[in-house]
Amino acid sequence: MPFDYTPFLRADLPAPAARFGGFPKYNFVGGHNDADAVPVADLVAAAAAALSREGRTLATYGLNSGPQGYLALREGIVRHLGSKAGMACAADDVLVTSGSLQALDLINAVFIQPGDTAIIEEGCYGGAMTRLKKLGASYVGAPLDGDGIRMDTLSNILDDLKARGTTPKFVYTIPTVQNPTGSVMPVERRVELLRLAEAHGIPIVEDDCYADLIWEGERPTAIKGLPGGDRVVYCGSFSKSIAPALRVGYIVAEWSVLSRMLPLKTDGGTGALEQMVLAEYLAGTFDSHVAELRGTLKTKCAAMMEAVNREFGSAAEFSAPKGGIFLWVTLPDAVDTARLFKAAGAEGVAINPGGEWSADAAAGAHKLRLCFAHPTVEAIHEGVARLAEICHREFGVPVRSGNVGRDG
Amino acid sequence: MPFDYTPFLRADLPAPAARFGGFPKYNFVGGHNDADAVPVADLVAAAAAALSREGRTLATYGLNSGPQGYLALREGIVRHLGSKAGMACAADDVLVTSGSLQALDLINAVFIQPGDTAIIEEGCYGGAMTRLKKLGASYVGAPLDGDGIRMDTLSNILDDLKARGTTPKFVYTIPTVQNPTGSVMPVERRVELLRLAEAHGIPIVEDDCYADLIWEGERPTAIKGLPGGDRVVYCGSFSKSIAPALRVGYIVAEWSVLSRMLPLKTDGGTGALEQMVLAEYLAGTFDSHVAELRGTLKTKCAAMMEAVNREFGSAAEFSAPKGGIFLWVTLPDAVDTARLFKAAGAEGVAINPGGEWSADAAAGAHKLRLCFAHPTVEAIHEGVARLAEICHREFGVPVRSGNVGRDG
Repeated sequence: MPFDYTPFLRADLPAPAARFGGFPKYNFVGGHNDADAVPVADLVAAAAAALSREGRTLATYGLNSGPQGYLALREGIVRHLGSKAGMACAADDVLVTSGSLQALDLINAVFIQPGDTAIIEEGCYGGAMTRLKKLGASYVGAPLDGDGIRMDTLSNILDDLKARGTTPKFVYTIPTVQNPTGSVMPVERRVELLRLAEAHGIPIVEDDCYADLIWEGERPTAIKGLPGGDRVVYCGSFSKSIAPALRVGYIVAEWSVLSRMLPLKTDGGTGALEQMVLAEYLAGTFDSHVAELRGTLKTKCAAMMEAVNREFGSAAEFSAPKGGIFLWVTLPDAVDTARLFKAAGAEGVAINPGGEWSADAAAGAHKLRLCFAHPTVEAIHEGVARLAEICHREFGVPVRSGNVGRDG
Repeated sequence: MPFDYTPFLRADLPAPAARFGGFPKYNFVGGHNDADAVPVADLVAAAAAALSREGRTLATYGLNSGPQGYLALREGIVRHLGSKAGMACAADDVLVTSGSLQALDLINAVFIQPGDTAIIEEGCYGGAMTRLKKLGASYVGAPLDGDGIRMDTLSNILDDLKARGTTPKFVYTIPTVQNPTGSVMPVERRVELLRLAEAHGIPIVEDDCYADLIWEGERPTAIKGLPGGDRVVYCGSFSKSIAPALRVGYIVAEWSVLSRMLPLKTDGGTGALEQMVLAEYLAGTFDSHVAELRGTLKTKCAAMMEAVNREFGSAAEFSAPKGGIFLWVTLPDAVDTARLFKAAGAEGVAINPGGEWSADAAAGAHKLRLCFAHPTVEAIHEGVARLAEICHREFGVPVRSGNVGRDG
């Protein structure tokens, strides 16, 4: 009989993981990207160039650049944010992290203690919410419209919290290609958000991990790049613009914040090889790659919207995303997407049930998130058709099903 | 005036970090390695081969291999442990981590809660102790001799704990190239350790991160590879055998443990590029590289021992390490190495004060750890001479100083 570890395990662990069984056939979840869009040849060249030139520095933790990360990468991030996000910062303001998930962990680690309150967006990255919950914090979801957080309702939320004697630790926002709605907050509203935060004396956490993937035109100036941006802790990532399996993100913040995060980053540094390759690639063909990737993603987004329209008809409501990798779909109230998630999962169609992506889980219970970057256009069409069949079987929605068109 | 984050920060944060000011001139701390020994050309080739063949899989989190890490790397680790550590395991028993530091974090995360007790070695990796303290656990240091933990004293410790009603969560050991003493626990003692652990019904955590760097002969069979090894949670690393800036380590454990760790590894996976390159390199010239690296390190170790003998004479006592990258030196009781650390640091000589590497900080207060892998042989000689001068100035030890030989 093998050794029984049960009495030695913490009492409060989450349920055990199941064995990985491979990805589902129709994989509409997660930040996966288009396999054809991975710039393999340029990454090979970047690895060869960076390693040949500086490979000996791998002998030291942090590549002689110290705990904030590889200096050439931080300098590249500074140039990138200067030209693309309208943000002036210095390499000393940047902390390279092991993906933007570690960035969120470090942000929470310095700010959040049990009993704290954070303001998030009513539709919100699920991982941000599970992290806050795990730390014993509660959150209030600020209502969204097509331009991101509605400032009138945010103002009311802040006033209400104040009346109850609660100062939120921060407002967490994904202003550029909001997750899951795909909206982009216009600059005027960003200015207003800063004004509201100033009036209430609170910081802002700006998660810009999708900002490179805006379909058209320039990114609006980052909130951190606007006057008063010193109250903003900013994070970004290359997971979405190059490849999610590369785990490199970053935080841009005042030294008064970074200096408190550094003692908590006890990982021996973020992977140096990935940092070196990204620095080289960022200084090389990154911009033209992103331009091409945007086109690929826009095409897949169009396929997803077309498939949802065709298969679900008027039963599905959504706004066209302004960029990114996901579509946020509202189904009739009768549809419980948590149940749909299970039924569809059993038949090889993976979706994000809306409750897991909503500050108010009940309010999101008939919504779902469909990621379109990874599946082929063909898989999008097949998978959404399959999903509509399952949804019809389970909930009678969409009304017409089977071989009959559902354009109603 | 910039935004004041102070009221928003957690009350219990460690002191803020200072700005990184570069490495000290004589850098005798940390797991840094020999810069000339980084196998740059072979890493370039490994990156090109792995990326060209499988770069498209970077588009998915976890490279289609699931949350336990890149399958080819896990298979390579299985082969490596089978041939070098006498351990039979399968790819499904391996969890790839972001360095062995994340391995320690995950091990602690599943086992340790506030108030727990762990048994460690009396001389112990400092980061293992700070992690346990941070989690609210206490530890008992088991005395060491030239063969690692003394089983008679460990038996007494376990009996004493039992008499007080305390079951330790695990015995944490670095049996092969012990940190900081550089000893190697013989197989017979490993068997005895397992027997003791069985008698007391407790698990063992085996940290084998230096095991590739044993000077001569074969590694003893890993504790996990011996009968009864199912009670062992094993971790290893490539930081010490290839390059510390590459952040890839691993855990080998029963599924009853791994399945509880996986939900806590919320980092989106360990960097895939590093995993791919290491898998390729491990299947290639890794073994011959390690053989050469051992020779380099042995030469530097000899230089360090020679320098300490020449500069400190009989004031310094140490045992010749059987491998690795550090020398554990005992100075006369009058020397406070915490004070020496400060005085030497101010003059460009970095050392690990023994108190930080000792379960009983007071007992280690006149010891120090000197890492020799990174500095050149010339820097070793110069830096140790400088250290002896400073030590003489501060403590009158070693007795003769300045331009006079200290061979006494």
